[in-house]
Amino acid sequence: MTDIIIVGAGPAGLSAAVNAVNRGKTVRIFSNKENYLSKAERVDNHLGFYNISGKELMDKFKEHAEAMNIKTEEGKVVNILPMGESFMVNINGEISEAKKIILAMGVSKVKELPGEGRLLGSGVSYCATCDGMLYRNKNAIVWDQSNDALEEANYLNSIGVNITFVSKKARSEHLNGNIKYVSGTISEILGDYSVEAVIINGENLQADAVFLLRDAVAPTALIDGLETESGFIRVNKNMETNIEGVYAAGDIIGKPLQLSKAVSEGLIAAQHAAIQIDIQ
Amino acid sequence: MTDIIIVGAGPAGLSAAVNAVNRGKTVRIFSNKENYLSKAERVDNHLGFYNISGKELMDKFKEHAEAMNIKTEEGKVVNILPMGESFMVNINGEISEAKKIILAMGVSKVKELPGEGRLLGSGVSYCATCDGMLYRNKNAIVWDQSNDALEEANYLNSIGVNITFVSKKARSEHLNGNIKYVSGTISEILGDYSVEAVIINGENLQADAVFLLRDAVAPTALIDGLETESGFIRVNKNMETNIEGVYAAGDIIGKPLQLSKAVSEGLIAAQHAAIQIDIQ
Repeated sequence: MTDIIIVGAGPAGLSAAVNAVNRGKTVRIFSNKENYLSKAERVDNHLGFYNISGKELMDKFKEHAEAMNIKTEEGKVVNILPMGESFMVNINGEISEAKKIILAMGVSKVKELPGEGRLLGSGVSYCATCDGMLYRNKNAIVWDQSNDALEEANYLNSIGVNITFVSKKARSEHLNGNIKYVSGTISEILGDYSVEAVIINGENLQADAVFLLRDAVAPTALIDGLETESGFIRVNKNMETNIEGVYAAGDIIGKPLQLSKAVSEGLIAAQHAAIQIDIQ
Repeated sequence: MTDIIIVGAGPAGLSAAVNAVNRGKTVRIFSNKENYLSKAERVDNHLGFYNISGKELMDKFKEHAEAMNIKTEEGKVVNILPMGESFMVNINGEISEAKKIILAMGVSKVKELPGEGRLLGSGVSYCATCDGMLYRNKNAIVWDQSNDALEEANYLNSIGVNITFVSKKARSEHLNGNIKYVSGTISEILGDYSVEAVIINGENLQADAVFLLRDAVAPTALIDGLETESGFIRVNKNMETNIEGVYAAGDIIGKPLQLSKAVSEGLIAAQHAAIQIDIQ
């Protein structure tokens, strides 16, 4: 079992990883997108680095982690299940067990659709690899909200799911031949006990499942019962969320959305988690 | 008037200075001792710097500040007086005015003597230059608790104060000829309304004043009414203390005593102070 699984490899996640390893703990750290810091043209306000580009700074952060044998793994975490003494983490269908969790995915831009939370696990899925087989010979909609969505639509099609691909981008030519393509966006998911239809461009389209393939899963959809406050995850001064063993750090817990703060909170979360592992 | 006066030039103080200047604010930053980080043999847990000595890291922090034209001034802040819209800051006898204050002096190792707080300003002084003239032709005790104490004893003697120098170090040969030297430590300050005597090595010695010349003044002696919690300054999430306009950041506000945390808190304090100045 891994000691700590860290979701997100920006400044908060990498600081957590470095500090967990410093305290003799094993970590796995997952990321499936480039950190937005990499896009900053110039950073002047993180002490010790003057007139540095966001990309150079992220490179320095990654070098530090690599020097300590910490390798960020590509992967979207789609579900975290508390099991009492440990957590089962679903990374795109692969299950990994950890004693503690640190959430460091940055600001969540995910806006939940009406019906999404209610029908999650009853036709609404965030992971083609995980749930695809449940919908063989059934009708599923894939909503294109990440680069991988196209590939995952083709995968679902290849295992026998009837796919309609909904996208705002004109990339129907990359889809397998028998995938239907609809240009547009989904505004609502309908169904009493399980998904029955979605509303696309104001019109109903029947379906047994909807795959919402965004870059990230909203933190509250990742773990059941996670408490938020004004849209950010609520933590105490040790960075503990309301769920024992689950920490959060960085922009995900609120303002100011600053690099120095993310680095500090990653450290605090990892050090506290390491101590808890030692005394348990 | 300066926008922000920062007391202490370790990681928290320098991060505050850099961020205040980034927000277009003027700062003065004072320090009268080497930061203890400089003594760390190796630092591995501040993201972005692997296998670096404390001294090299402090040098990088200072370079960042200097690149932004921030110069740390030598000087011991001995008193801060709230004046409504601003603060009067006494730096070893020089008075400077500021709109906001950020306290970042690190862990306070100062242990208050019995009688010290009660008789502060009534014979107890932290600053020879400030209060020396009040005790011409009177008897004063200088307690040697910093490198400057010897020089300040000689200064007090030169302006006509009758000095007894109390020290654990054998350095009586560096004192002016007519200064009395007592080897020992002070355990209590006595007096009903003003200083009358001190207890040295278990014996009473009469005096009109006691100069306690430590490296730093305890934060609670610096500003009247500053609230603490378990020996650390109490702040809210914006790093505001209970006194409006006074912030605190870094080890002075509590555990974990970590560099990354100090850098973050300096940033938060400075950014909040800058916003308050803008809207006032």
